[in-house]
Amino acid sequence: MSTTYNFCAGPAMLPTAVMQQAQAEFLDWHGLGCSVMEISHRSKEFIAVAEQAEQDLRTLLNVPKDYAVLFGHGGGRGQFSAVPLNLAQQHESAAFLTSGSWSAGAYQEAQKYLNAIELVTSSSVNGQVTVPHLSLDKEQQQRFAYLHYCANETVEGVEINCLPEAGSVPLVADMSSNILSKNIDVSKFGVIYAGAQKNIGPSGLAVVLVNNDLLDKGRDSTPSFLNYQNMAKNGSMYNTPPTYAWYLAGLVFRWLLNSGGVAAIEQQNQQKANLLYQCIDQSDFYRNHVHPDFRSRMNVVFHLPNPDLDSLFLAEAEKNGLRALKGHRIVGGMRASIYNAMPLIGVATLTEFMQEFARKHG
Amino acid sequence: MSTTYNFCAGPAMLPTAVMQQAQAEFLDWHGLGCSVMEISHRSKEFIAVAEQAEQDLRTLLNVPKDYAVLFGHGGGRGQFSAVPLNLAQQHESAAFLTSGSWSAGAYQEAQKYLNAIELVTSSSVNGQVTVPHLSLDKEQQQRFAYLHYCANETVEGVEINCLPEAGSVPLVADMSSNILSKNIDVSKFGVIYAGAQKNIGPSGLAVVLVNNDLLDKGRDSTPSFLNYQNMAKNGSMYNTPPTYAWYLAGLVFRWLLNSGGVAAIEQQNQQKANLLYQCIDQSDFYRNHVHPDFRSRMNVVFHLPNPDLDSLFLAEAEKNGLRALKGHRIVGGMRASIYNAMPLIGVATLTEFMQEFARKHG
Repeated sequence: MSTTYNFCAGPAMLPTAVMQQAQAEFLDWHGLGCSVMEISHRSKEFIAVAEQAEQDLRTLLNVPKDYAVLFGHGGGRGQFSAVPLNLAQQHESAAFLTSGSWSAGAYQEAQKYLNAIELVTSSSVNGQVTVPHLSLDKEQQQRFAYLHYCANETVEGVEINCLPEAGSVPLVADMSSNILSKNIDVSKFGVIYAGAQKNIGPSGLAVVLVNNDLLDKGRDSTPSFLNYQNMAKNGSMYNTPPTYAWYLAGLVFRWLLNSGGVAAIEQQNQQKANLLYQCIDQSDFYRNHVHPDFRSRMNVVFHLPNPDLDSLFLAEAEKNGLRALKGHRIVGGMRASIYNAMPLIGVATLTEFMQEFARKHG
Repeated sequence: MSTTYNFCAGPAMLPTAVMQQAQAEFLDWHGLGCSVMEISHRSKEFIAVAEQAEQDLRTLLNVPKDYAVLFGHGGGRGQFSAVPLNLAQQHESAAFLTSGSWSAGAYQEAQKYLNAIELVTSSSVNGQVTVPHLSLDKEQQQRFAYLHYCANETVEGVEINCLPEAGSVPLVADMSSNILSKNIDVSKFGVIYAGAQKNIGPSGLAVVLVNNDLLDKGRDSTPSFLNYQNMAKNGSMYNTPPTYAWYLAGLVFRWLLNSGGVAAIEQQNQQKANLLYQCIDQSDFYRNHVHPDFRSRMNVVFHLPNPDLDSLFLAEAEKNGLRALKGHRIVGGMRASIYNAMPLIGVATLTEFMQEFARKHG
């Protein structure tokens, strides 16, 4: 096969080294004569996999000891329901910052479970998307059970680097699409959750970090398999977890550790994003509509001068081994998702192609 | 590697041909230059996989047109919450038949969501586990929103072949561990659900068949990603599904079709179970405590005359390539799970070993 680069927003590409190892041991894992997906989650062999993955994730993100690390079902969107069901009662209020489609989805789902208040939404200023900074005042800190935001919006390509100031209110972040892409201070958060299918592993897995102080806030009606306290008490094995996804997540964590950890990948991610945004900004052809302070390092959204060119761009990109560049239907145009697993050479190949395409059609 | 046979109750072995194909196309699926787990669930390529899997499952089980086939998150236990949340309101009542650990778990979880009434429980008569037949009378048919039972109990090795008579009440079956092992008449059920990790694929996937008439019974508070109507409306892609598990399920369905379908595998399953139960019954050494009418064809539970021999049995079995035979901690002893993917030769190898072990230690 010729080299292809897969810019899919998710399920996204996984590190090549991880995929190669997974393939090599697919039929006979650790000499057991079967796949790791064919053994009991309660076997000592799988428990070792599970514990190592948790430990490696703790190391990578420097997770404080008083946080539970959960591996569960349902992906990121499952947490749209799980968060309100675990952190507050029906009569309580929670605050929402809406910066794009995903945070809007979380806000909408939460309305079923409590009094959800949208405090801030992104806006367009001089044609550039920007997100007002949010800081809860004293009165708000009394009022809200938690403050929810999405750290990176895959659809719009909007990333929030400057944390909302929640004061004494637990800060809850959907980091589905930028977890492990840069250093974060976990201690500033009440809950961090992430669907796996961008920077962690295959779809179907949700990783949740929860401050232990929040484990007893769940309501009785929370489905047991989504209940943080129940999950924590049972080492995420109250029910059979998605074991193969957990195993692959573990391989990704190990790959990241061996590649220098989060600090090293953050540098590479910055480099990749710079290269691509420069290519856009330095052309008169491509446009990006996000204010530089909020441009995502994971999902780079850009438009061609004329949408009639979109299908030609996609077809020629495909011919050059550059896959899955079509933007989300909500915003149109193009989107290059350049998560941790995308090598710099992939982005360089894309920018070269983009420059060539602009020369021909500009 | 030498031949091993994996009797794990779940996550269980998958058909060897399926695993070999999955390994061969692990890094480059259909010439895309990446794995099927690395492509968008909304790509035409994955949608083709998803639709083929659904169609094959419909063919295998002869699913009537007026049933939705859903592929979701959360496994079988996720459905312990999803079923009451989708089929009844808080003030309604539902009936439960308890034949072992799994149906007891479903009954317990349902108590959070409605008035759950346990009508029948299994009992031991002359040292043999038996399950009273349940038939709802007229008054009960007025009273209950649904009747739930578990078609096969993996822990106790108890299978119910004679359907409970629910009359006009929707019959709900947990078929996690015996779906696709024998012919069933889907039209007799309101809902059939199954965690994938026994006869379908890897863990993390739940397959649900729902009569369309029941799709509008869900309550507003049902988490959207578990809501049957929402799942059906969105082709099980309201949120990113566990795509790799869905793909593997599709390969398993295709393997089953190519092997003669459910009727053919049912014959083989009967043959395998007969062989193993005969080995137990014809010895003075091994014992099984389930009444012949309720013996599971999927999970054969047996005890040695003296539990002190258990660890020796397991160690010697392991040396002979016979893995994961330890019984569930609730019932002790041994358990051989012989799902569709277990070949007859695996069971024959086990019975030979058992006879030899009995000769030495009897």
